[in-house]
Amino acid sequence: MYNKYYLSNIKLIKGGICAVDGVKAAGVRNGKYGVALILSENSYIAGTFTSNKITAAPVNYTKKIIKDGKISLIVVNSGNANCFTGEEGIEDCNNIVALSSKLLDISKDKIATASTGVIGRKMPMEIISDLIKKASNNVENSIKASEDAAKAIMTTDTIHKESAIQITLKNNNVVKIGGICKGTGMIAPNMGTMLCFIATDGKIKNEDLKYSLKIAVEDSFNMISVDGDESTNDTVLLFANGKSENEVLSHSGKIDENFQEGLNYLCKDLAKQMAYDGEGATKFLEVNVVGAKTKEDARKVAKSIINSSLVKTAIFGEDPNWGRIVMAIGHAKAKIDPENLSITISSGENRVDLVKDGDILAYDGTSNLKEAENIMKNREINIIIDLKQGFDSATAYGCDLSYDYVKINAEYTTW
Amino acid sequence: MYNKYYLSNIKLIKGGICAVDGVKAAGVRNGKYGVALILSENSYIAGTFTSNKITAAPVNYTKKIIKDGKISLIVVNSGNANCFTGEEGIEDCNNIVALSSKLLDISKDKIATASTGVIGRKMPMEIISDLIKKASNNVENSIKASEDAAKAIMTTDTIHKESAIQITLKNNNVVKIGGICKGTGMIAPNMGTMLCFIATDGKIKNEDLKYSLKIAVEDSFNMISVDGDESTNDTVLLFANGKSENEVLSHSGKIDENFQEGLNYLCKDLAKQMAYDGEGATKFLEVNVVGAKTKEDARKVAKSIINSSLVKTAIFGEDPNWGRIVMAIGHAKAKIDPENLSITISSGENRVDLVKDGDILAYDGTSNLKEAENIMKNREINIIIDLKQGFDSATAYGCDLSYDYVKINAEYTTW
Repeated sequence: MYNKYYLSNIKLIKGGICAVDGVKAAGVRNGKYGVALILSENSYIAGTFTSNKITAAPVNYTKKIIKDGKISLIVVNSGNANCFTGEEGIEDCNNIVALSSKLLDISKDKIATASTGVIGRKMPMEIISDLIKKASNNVENSIKASEDAAKAIMTTDTIHKESAIQITLKNNNVVKIGGICKGTGMIAPNMGTMLCFIATDGKIKNEDLKYSLKIAVEDSFNMISVDGDESTNDTVLLFANGKSENEVLSHSGKIDENFQEGLNYLCKDLAKQMAYDGEGATKFLEVNVVGAKTKEDARKVAKSIINSSLVKTAIFGEDPNWGRIVMAIGHAKAKIDPENLSITISSGENRVDLVKDGDILAYDGTSNLKEAENIMKNREINIIIDLKQGFDSATAYGCDLSYDYVKINAEYTTW
Repeated sequence: MYNKYYLSNIKLIKGGICAVDGVKAAGVRNGKYGVALILSENSYIAGTFTSNKITAAPVNYTKKIIKDGKISLIVVNSGNANCFTGEEGIEDCNNIVALSSKLLDISKDKIATASTGVIGRKMPMEIISDLIKKASNNVENSIKASEDAAKAIMTTDTIHKESAIQITLKNNNVVKIGGICKGTGMIAPNMGTMLCFIATDGKIKNEDLKYSLKIAVEDSFNMISVDGDESTNDTVLLFANGKSENEVLSHSGKIDENFQEGLNYLCKDLAKQMAYDGEGATKFLEVNVVGAKTKEDARKVAKSIINSSLVKTAIFGEDPNWGRIVMAIGHAKAKIDPENLSITISSGENRVDLVKDGDILAYDGTSNLKEAENIMKNREINIIIDLKQGFDSATAYGCDLSYDYVKINAEYTTW
């Protein structure tokens, strides 16, 4: 697994989303279908959603329900995206909420929902209803419950994804944040078929929660790419149940810096887990761009490299092909100067310059090339670009493009 | 091969670029390196080039040389892109021009040059010089010479690409246009590692030539995509030697419509050949978008579909996965209405609706699905999208994403 970095106010803890006080979960599967339930009574809530112009029924439903409201339950199914399913899809969505409401005795207007899976097929409501019933009997606050929920929402994911931290706020109070997510493909510059649910026991209301989530998403879920495609179902929900009784706002009403740092960390951790598990991935790729004239330029260059099929296939082939990296940098249309460009690759402790201030250092017969070829054999590759145009930076996360990406997506049958 | 369409004023002829009066060519190879020479005395010239911010030495050289000038010779090498090669690359470029000038007795300021191949390696000048010498002894106007030149500029291309037509102008005079090109990967929304050289014996000066080329490129080379990447070396040159003595301008000074139609046709033909030969391609894909609110919307939707890795892998898997097409349409950020959207696929005479006005017609057990699955088995697949938002349309050309794309690009060694 990639190196987790540590911040002094952040402590990694176990339990995923259930690490957070007052959060219960459950998850059950039946073949390719799964249902997860996440309970957190009367929680303030914020969400970010796909920017695809075609959105699934549950996306539209949840967008409406969380507006200015509070939620107590999130119902998630995998196996079917309930997208492009017309009136029937909306009805299915309503039925899922109604059934969950009845089973768990929670008011319908406090229930959000999300779906992931095949687009444009009718929901197998009998299977889904059955799974909701089963899940509703297993809801609990435990390490296993978070894991079950994380597993229930998987589609082409090969490992379940969760993360939890404890944050010491500026005033020394402690709050927790925990989350689960899924997503391995259709993952693009602006989120992917990704679902992510994050809970905190901090006290923070919708508007501040929304602001804080937006900042965290920008440098995490918006900076991962598996294939440049973008799903119709992307949903990130962050909810706060206030169980810790600790305000995460400063006296001036601003969001506590340590909380924001923690949320940023958690979102990046989950985003990296998704990139790491990218469809068919054999390598995890992190691209750091420094010295950009603007933040926007830094992002553009990082994303251009992480999205390039030619860079991705070179990584798969373990070839330190900086020519393709140069091509991707130029393709980004940011302010650059080829003669001031530096490209470094690293993995763990090893690090070597391929290009330094426009000069090629890794060519036939050089020790730099030999070292670069060795570094490329690692599971985690880090590409560092110094544009020397200014002081802004950005990081993007992704993976290589392998035979298995093609296999998975050519054989993932619709019918 | 895909169906060529015929226009009444256009006649397909043989001979590629040498079908044009006054054009001589030669092409020789030595392993992965090749050199092509194209001679056309004192020709007006227009060019379009890569929009990548990092450009190869020959791109910069040729951009300058064709500005307001006339050219008599184009020297092209394959195997090395002469890009990111610093001062030495510029010198190599000058040496190539100087050598060709001496060998063929053509003034240096009438020589353009282009390169394709690996980025960031020093030019193997001994090999290239040797090939230029050999080629300069074989220059002739013949069907074989055009073919040799087209073969000499190939890199990962599996077939050489050429096309020629004869056009009856509005005033019944006749002119010819012929061209050769190469390109199979790093081919993106805005050109790729593509080189294309087109000659006409019509009389037309630089400014009009430029205008005419811009129109033709817009719907051809700018609408193909193999992998969404964009090369540092893309070059399209169109030159006119006036040998037919026939003006291709109308009395009002406008470009003869039939000439423009012919040039559009030729560029599309060459662009399609490139998409057809896309790296690892097993299918040729044409996406027609109709009923768009604006031309820009039509282009965006067509390109979004042709660029989607998920659509491309589905095509490779012969799966009529219209769910992914829907995803790609929504991702394009054009004006759409899911309830008025229609998706049809066809191949040759066969044609079936997958989605009609938002209703899914191809699902489990329907004859539409069965028919769609049969159509997907063909080599040439046509996806037709009706957005029903207006009256603009666009067409994009591409191919599927196969194991071999990954293989070719993972194993294409830099060193």
